Amino acid sequence: MTDAFICTIGDELLIGQVVDTNSARIAQALGQAGVTISGRSAVGDDSKAIENAITAALKAHSIVITTGGLGPTKDDITKAVLARISHSSRYVEHQGQWERVQQILHGRGLDILPENRAQALVPENMEVIVNQLGTAPIMIYRSPEGSTLYALPGVPHEAVGALPSIIEDIRAHYPLQSILHRNIMVYGLAESALSKLIEPWETALDADMHLAYLPNPLTGVRLRLSMYNLDSEADARSRMEEKIASLKEILGERVYADEDSTLEESVGKVLKKAGKTLSAAESCTGGEIAHLITSVPGASEWFLGSVTSYAVSVKEGVLGVPHSIIENHGVVSSEVAIAMAQGVRRLTGSDFAVATTGLAGPSGDGVNPVGTVWIGVAGPGGNESVSYVYKNDRARNIERFSASALNFLRLFILKELSH
Amino acid sequence: MTDAFICTIGDELLIGQVVDTNSARIAQALGQAGVTISGRSAVGDDSKAIENAITAALKAHSIVITTGGLGPTKDDITKAVLARISHSSRYVEHQGQWERVQQILHGRGLDILPENRAQALVPENMEVIVNQLGTAPIMIYRSPEGSTLYALPGVPHEAVGALPSIIEDIRAHYPLQSILHRNIMVYGLAESALSKLIEPWETALDADMHLAYLPNPLTGVRLRLSMYNLDSEADARSRMEEKIASLKEILGERVYADEDSTLEESVGKVLKKAGKTLSAAESCTGGEIAHLITSVPGASEWFLGSVTSYAVSVKEGVLGVPHSIIENHGVVSSEVAIAMAQGVRRLTGSDFAVATTGLAGPSGDGVNPVGTVWIGVAGPGGNESVSYVYKNDRARNIERFSASALNFLRLFILKELSH
Repeated sequence: MTDAFICTIGDELLIGQVVDTNSARIAQALGQAGVTISGRSAVGDDSKAIENAITAALKAHSIVITTGGLGPTKDDITKAVLARISHSSRYVEHQGQWERVQQILHGRGLDILPENRAQALVPENMEVIVNQLGTAPIMIYRSPEGSTLYALPGVPHEAVGALPSIIEDIRAHYPLQSILHRNIMVYGLAESALSKLIEPWETALDADMHLAYLPNPLTGVRLRLSMYNLDSEADARSRMEEKIASLKEILGERVYADEDSTLEESVGKVLKKAGKTLSAAESCTGGEIAHLITSVPGASEWFLGSVTSYAVSVKEGVLGVPHSIIENHGVVSSEVAIAMAQGVRRLTGSDFAVATTGLAGPSGDGVNPVGTVWIGVAGPGGNESVSYVYKNDRARNIERFSASALNFLRLFILKELSH
Repeated sequence: MTDAFICTIGDELLIGQVVDTNSARIAQALGQAGVTISGRSAVGDDSKAIENAITAALKAHSIVITTGGLGPTKDDITKAVLARISHSSRYVEHQGQWERVQQILHGRGLDILPENRAQALVPENMEVIVNQLGTAPIMIYRSPEGSTLYALPGVPHEAVGALPSIIEDIRAHYPLQSILHRNIMVYGLAESALSKLIEPWETALDADMHLAYLPNPLTGVRLRLSMYNLDSEADARSRMEEKIASLKEILGERVYADEDSTLEESVGKVLKKAGKTLSAAESCTGGEIAHLITSVPGASEWFLGSVTSYAVSVKEGVLGVPHSIIENHGVVSSEVAIAMAQGVRRLTGSDFAVATTGLAGPSGDGVNPVGTVWIGVAGPGGNESVSYVYKNDRARNIERFSASALNFLRLFILKELSH
């Protein structure tokens, strides 16, 4: 069994100033590649503690992954520890990383300081994978006992960006269990209700199959079906596809994608294929829906724009929501949500529009409970609205409002386009 | 020194299905109370691994805190391990927790199952703090060697809710080290340049002081100054404030907050105090600036709204950017950024406005490099613009564009208000 131990380095993680997201991302990626995750620890910026943790882990596990402690500032002492662990008596400059350091700093219009050049120095007995996304190199040490240490930068997108190369290197050096994964994306059912609904299907799974529930407030539940220790991949694939097909039949239109994906990507796919456009009007979601949509590369092909109408004056003046509707029904209402959607559709000339009005918290309006959202959608064939009440904090409510709006929009567009 | 080790229990954390937020919240609370955090680990739902981790930690540290593994489902095996560790030969029902279990299930309209009654059973040699927020009790074991184990539930709000009682118990049994932390927030300097700039100041720090750099693309660099083992807190505070004052003098207007904070909170504070309002027009940032601003509770007091003008037709039709400006200067230009800011200021009637136009990637416009942004700001006294080029992926570029725009806006508002 090829197993891995993850060790995060840095006082900021240990003392809790920063939440550790790297470990979860690394564990997920390695797990999908067939590596068993055996344990995880966090150590502070203390040479002895770092050395002890890495040394012990290299003895007990096939693979040790560290993140952090590799920046240019003086609280980053990991590299000296790595030199000792790898029995390196000197540092050598890695040409590829040094070039990348210069490119990156140049691109940012920054001067190159001696500390920056020092970042390309690597203990002589370590290999390097050039970090394309940052200045600290990714370093590898292969111990005489056959275990491998991968030292990754702590900056999350750099650590995650390094994973494909790390997994490729692991594949080249270790036997990995063969695993097949298939994801489908489901929105609109809580994990417990979903589990109840598909219980008979899940119970009937073959012994070499395992279903995982991966809930996320922005994307719903990702169902991941895995198959282990495959004899024939072709056979496994066809068994897998059969199971997935029967699962999709049970879940119907709650399934919004056939692979790891997001609601906004799914909406974009449908609109792009139909040659239709979208706009948004946001009150309580405050720009999050537009942000999610424009995070999809190529969104400009189908997304025209949005209005965040935080003030009532903007709802009336820019979106043209009639004053009487607000007066009669209140800002948080079906009528205002629909008028906002119609308003932004008219303003931008889009085919479809989605709008939100509600109370993300912490304070309410004295009428509706905190966590209430009204979602309105408008299209060539008419309008619709729906309301939800969520019981989370402000940030989480904004996420759930946005995801629910995207899903309601998705179902509305599918219905309209099917006419 | 009273030190603590945190151990999270559960496969879902180990394999990365769930990001561990409990450890950070626990470490922060304990650290502020003067407990040194010595380490942290994660173990899966495996009896032997849990027992080994807890036993080793109880030998090496004053305090061991576990979270998770205490629910009613079958993968929760921690309680049996706790019975072995505490040398308990039987379980006793804890009356207070049993009453709470009944109240909670009753309140949720749920039937009481045998598994629920079992949750109030506790190994006889453990003490209990009633979990007011959930059904699993908080359990304490005091080892003969003087170390203490606190077993907390894994549900985040239950674990966090238990902390005040835990800290009170620690204070009653251990001498606590005094620590003082102070944060200041800096934007506009990379970590390495910042380190260079303040090197003489940092080198001159007293031996009981430590500076940490905590960089983040959305908030710049947080500098955290810590002081340990204080004799007199009043004296320490005044030494700390002296150091912070001299650091702020070196950094000048790059310091945007005197505590852990964000650029958008800082902009909001200035506007709220001055009784001024803001709007935004976003192209390449696609709603992220509005999203960041509206994540601040109470933003409706000073933020009127925004337009995401992804399509040229929206820039012209909604924001009123003259067609000739776009034709003569291109969409990604100083002129368009300023015209967008002026346009949304006029449209919403706000005092100040900020606008972005650029290329987040992956594709460019054939003229400007991918990663280019023009930021425009407008206010009662005039307009300004600035351009940056970042070399990141789409998501990261959007973050950096947004943060740079908020910082440019902040400096512009401060200058305008000082007239």
